[in-house]
Amino acid sequence: MKLNSIFSFLLPKESTFFPLFQQSGELLAEAGKAFVDFTNTTNHEERRIIYKTIKHAETKCDEITTQLFNALNDTFITPFDREDIRELADALDDVIDYINSSAKRIVLYQPETLPEQAAQLARIIRNGCEEIRLAMVDFSKLRYKSDSVMVRCSTMKMLEREADDVYEHFVIDLFRSEKDPVELFKLTQITKELERATNSVDNVGKMLKTIIIKYA
Amino acid sequence: MKLNSIFSFLLPKESTFFPLFQQSGELLAEAGKAFVDFTNTTNHEERRIIYKTIKHAETKCDEITTQLFNALNDTFITPFDREDIRELADALDDVIDYINSSAKRIVLYQPETLPEQAAQLARIIRNGCEEIRLAMVDFSKLRYKSDSVMVRCSTMKMLEREADDVYEHFVIDLFRSEKDPVELFKLTQITKELERATNSVDNVGKMLKTIIIKYA
Amino acid sequence: MKLNSIFSFLLPKESTFFPLFQQSGELLAEAGKAFVDFTNTTNHEERRIIYKTIKHAETKCDEITTQLFNALNDTFITPFDREDIRELADALDDVIDYINSSAKRIVLYQPETLPEQAAQLARIIRNGCEEIRLAMVDFSKLRYKSDSVMVRCSTMKMLEREADDVYEHFVIDLFRSEKDPVELFKLTQITKELERATNSVDNVGKMLKTIIIKYA
Repeated sequence: MKLNSIFSFLLPKESTFFPLFQQSGELLAEAGKAFVDFTNTTNHEERRIIYKTIKHAETKCDEITTQLFNALNDTFITPFDREDIRELADALDDVIDYINSSAKRIVLYQPETLPEQAAQLARIIRNGCEEIRLAMVDFSKLRYKSDSVMVRCSTMKMLEREADDVYEHFVIDLFRSEKDPVELFKLTQITKELERATNSVDNVGKMLKTIIIKYA
Repeated sequence: MKLNSIFSFLLPKESTFFPLFQQSGELLAEAGKAFVDFTNTTNHEERRIIYKTIKHAETKCDEITTQLFNALNDTFITPFDREDIRELADALDDVIDYINSSAKRIVLYQPETLPEQAAQLARIIRNGCEEIRLAMVDFSKLRYKSDSVMVRCSTMKMLEREADDVYEHFVIDLFRSEKDPVELFKLTQITKELERATNSVDNVGKMLKTIIIKYA
Repeated sequence: MKLNSIFSFLLPKESTFFPLFQQSGELLAEAGKAFVDFTNTTNHEERRIIYKTIKHAETKCDEITTQLFNALNDTFITPFDREDIRELADALDDVIDYINSSAKRIVLYQPETLPEQAAQLARIIRNGCEEIRLAMVDFSKLRYKSDSVMVRCSTMKMLEREADDVYEHFVIDLFRSEKDPVELFKLTQITKELERATNSVDNVGKMLKTIIIKYA
């Protein structure tokens, strides 16, 4: 047995983490794009169909998270602390969960109109997901790409602030203009979920930053 | 000092974990049953009385969780990773917390009528809690019973899907039929908490699966 | 190199944890006080100004939490388990987050009147934050002060029970007296966030208790 193969025995799955994180990133970007289409249509039937795409991406991301956790258990040496890998995987999973639950609320509540600000928040979420996707590509080459990942983390933070601004005006407007209590109720519940989705993007950024400070 | 007693010194509390998990399982099953009774009565005073049973089980489960965490600190060798024991204990505690908070919302909000679907969700939750109770019995003999626990985990997943279906129709119906905004608001808030309770059952199943894949 | 300096090399940052926890405690107390002023005024413009103080304390506490996490990564020997330090820091951060989000909801929703019970809950939260501040001062001398910290944890628990009582009557009253569905909706959403804030104070107490049982 050559030294080489001993190493490849000891480190067989270390390299599984990065491709899995990358796949998660791709699913997030996919869900983000579908979510923009979802908020751009006013046709309820079309929304149900696009929702299925989002749900499908969410289910696949769930499977990848499970694979990540299993790989964590099988792997003796991990590229980062187990806890960090686990938290990053959770943070990525949260993003797609919130996109899914935001879309689901819209499908279930069927608000009479979906205000433009909802579509605005969807675009911010999509942009955040695209940043995450690109960060996950660089992540596997963290030694050379940590600066690039750091810039993406800052973008995620900026997007979250932008979303916060949109959200605040959205809520104030709603209470001012929407006189039907049922519609008001529906829309505030939908909006809150959208805000959680935007926060979850920033959480990925924070988690990545923590990892970079620790290892890069 | 015989080798035997050295071992029993080194491993004094390992065996405390399983009985504590089993007790948690029993409290969950108890709370689940009480919750079905709770949703079956329309009498507000009766509900307050049954709620006390649920609250009592929740408090006792809290104490057991604390005991589990303390045992974790005192025990040198644990049957599973500390993190897994902690997460399983948390997952069990969540179930009874959500049953408690669902019942509490109904007591506080006093909706005019509690739709049949709420009772349906309560039954699903009770069935899930019974599966958890049985899984906790098998859990102490995991080496021989892992297949049986795995089947219970699948049942928990199935129950969660069933609940999802009930929940979705419930919400759509509510917005269609309930015209009083205050009642609508009460019922959607109650329903959401019920849905969280059904999810928490599935989380126990997921956590158990992770542990089985890791050790069994 | 003297033995002394070797030790100070090995333990360079152990002592950074306590001052950081103390600073968090001070920011919480500050936010708690501002929050009482916030609920005492009925002037919306004044509220916006006080809200900025709360937001500022929350941002600073966030920075301290980040410093705590970074110190955790840089420090070879920690005074407690890493996981405990992390959880305590998270628990402290949660308190100020919930104070902030409660205040933010009031600013955004602009309820016509803020019931006296909201101010009552704010006072309970402030008292809890003051207990936390004092507990954090004693925390650095845990060996000598564990009894004192334990008493403070009991006070936090008592405050949580008091808050629970206020909260329950608050909600029942609301549904009984508030006939405007929009106002009702606003106030229940605000109340729920206040309740979460009171729970988060008790969580700090629970976390501290766990640490004391483990080490003191």
